[in-house]
Amino acid sequence: ADADPKESPAQQDIGRYGLPQAGAEMRYYANHTLSYDQAKRIPRWVAENLSKAKLQGVADRKHCKFKPDPGIPEAFTAHNEDYLRSGWSRGHMAPAGDNKACAQSMAETFYLSNIVPQNYENNAGFWNRLEMYCRNLTNRFEDVWIVSGPLFLPEVGEDGKKTVSYQLLGKDNVAVPTHLFKVILAQRNSPSDTLALGAFVVPNKPIGFNHPLTEYQVSLPDLERMSGLSFFPRVDPAAAIRNLCELDSCRLMDFREFTLYITGRKVRGARSAEKLEKVMAELKDMGIAADEYLLKLYQQKKEELSQEGPKTRN
Amino acid sequence: ADADPKESPAQQDIGRYGLPQAGAEMRYYANHTLSYDQAKRIPRWVAENLSKAKLQGVADRKHCKFKPDPGIPEAFTAHNEDYLRSGWSRGHMAPAGDNKACAQSMAETFYLSNIVPQNYENNAGFWNRLEMYCRNLTNRFEDVWIVSGPLFLPEVGEDGKKTVSYQLLGKDNVAVPTHLFKVILAQRNSPSDTLALGAFVVPNKPIGFNHPLTEYQVSLPDLERMSGLSFFPRVDPAAAIRNLCELDSCRLMDFREFTLYITGRKVRGARSAEKLEKVMAELKDMGIAADEYLLKLYQQKKEELSQEGPKTRN
Ligand SMILES: [Mg+2]
Ligand SMILES: [Mg+2]
Repeated sequence: ADADPKESPAQQDIGRYGLPQAGAEMRYYANHTLSYDQAKRIPRWVAENLSKAKLQGVADRKHCKFKPDPGIPEAFTAHNEDYLRSGWSRGHMAPAGDNKACAQSMAETFYLSNIVPQNYENNAGFWNRLEMYCRNLTNRFEDVWIVSGPLFLPEVGEDGKKTVSYQLLGKDNVAVPTHLFKVILAQRNSPSDTLALGAFVVPNKPIGFNHPLTEYQVSLPDLERMSGLSFFPRVDPAAAIRNLCELDSCRLMDFREFTLYITGRKVRGARSAEKLEKVMAELKDMGIAADEYLLKLYQQKKEELSQEGPKTRN
Repeated sequence: ADADPKESPAQQDIGRYGLPQAGAEMRYYANHTLSYDQAKRIPRWVAENLSKAKLQGVADRKHCKFKPDPGIPEAFTAHNEDYLRSGWSRGHMAPAGDNKACAQSMAETFYLSNIVPQNYENNAGFWNRLEMYCRNLTNRFEDVWIVSGPLFLPEVGEDGKKTVSYQLLGKDNVAVPTHLFKVILAQRNSPSDTLALGAFVVPNKPIGFNHPLTEYQVSLPDLERMSGLSFFPRVDPAAAIRNLCELDSCRLMDFREFTLYITGRKVRGARSAEKLEKVMAELKDMGIAADEYLLKLYQQKKEELSQEGPKTRN
């Protein structure tokens, strides 16, 4: 083997007072890993591993607060003030909902090192449904690996010129990505079964129910060129990898399913009988009939609220 | 010490098929070091160490060719075709002119990993004069460390919105920086003397002789926030660092000095007596009198050409 090139006399001279640090190293948390982009004050990528067992639990996001990651140097961190009244939501890359098993790991997903400026409707809608699809995959695949992150993609002008353009938020200049990516690697029976992979590039804007997830699927080499990243480098390059959207559905919740799901959350969170009835009335107004599961939730909540009496709060 | 967090069972699961690779590691060459930006196909930063002794030599850039760095994965490298007819020059970050001591180290500065799309006039003019100032510092400082690189800075709209906007070149989407930075750290008597530092942010556009270098000086913390980089991390944070532009002049060549310098290069390269006389006539037309050094070069070249005879080429 050659001598270590960084040990040459010339290299020792160049590095005498230290080489520049980009802070792109791996950062390890209880249930996610990321590389941070010090120039953009957002993650470069965030990696997770999901399984049915790991998703169980009762940790609740209402106990969590967005805050600067204590591990990021002050000069390079975002702050909540950058996002406030910016018109952009704080979008999780590793979702809080993947961390119900542990209050600590959920709290860590609220570090701003895991957050990018995301369109509100995209965050609450399409991207939320994509995250639920990922969790749902654990019903059919023993192990699911997810990498999520921001992209800054060009627009092509009439003259053929390609231009990247993005906004910076707040005094910390937090970069607003034009797109978000998600790479999903899934294994039916872990660790030896065939792998299935899907890579998606989603514009950071509202996306309605008429757009299927497959519309945003890209090849992994294309995503690698867009992001400058190499994904899953330890997958055997000779192995046959299935297309996730052929093996599985890549079907997100439709409007009815999603509305029933959101209504279920509202039913669970209702603080009074009046509020509870209002939530159910809204569903009816949208022309959607409650399914069996929601009716059961409703009945439970109704009894719970009547036992508590009108003035009790917990 | 705590257990290595990356060794936790959760982290082992997350990394089972490898974590994403951004390729931001240090890359070591004969006489420069850099970190590459795989997403932008340009360096993130390039570091050098200059000294009077290291700058001696006769290596000639005419033997060098721009080419992809063989160490950069094909998916992430720029190619000469991206720059050709793009309207942008191939701008060295570690200058060829800092590598006259060694043909190999000069050749490595022509790897596209050391190159960014640079405005032609800036490259040949202001930036060129800045590079000459850096080399000239070695007459007064025993050791000079330089870090150079691209920046992508926002413009503020009338509504106060900050927007970063930059062009991509060719099929490889090579990013055109809005600005270039250079950090200079100098030590009069190495290794124990006081350090002097200057950090500069230069727009990637033509800059005339009426703009002094000091106009582009910024504080190091400001440059660190702009670039996302930490510079010279091994400098003792408690040490007093002098302002280079107070200790030294930070004065670049003026129009007359620069024209004499460029004319000197043309005189050296003249292939015929006619060409030689034309170069000297052009200087006269600009109203600049040849200095003693240039007149000596001219006489030498004139004799050389007359001895060779009109038809000889080397
Ligand atoms: Mg979200
Ligand atoms: Mg140059």
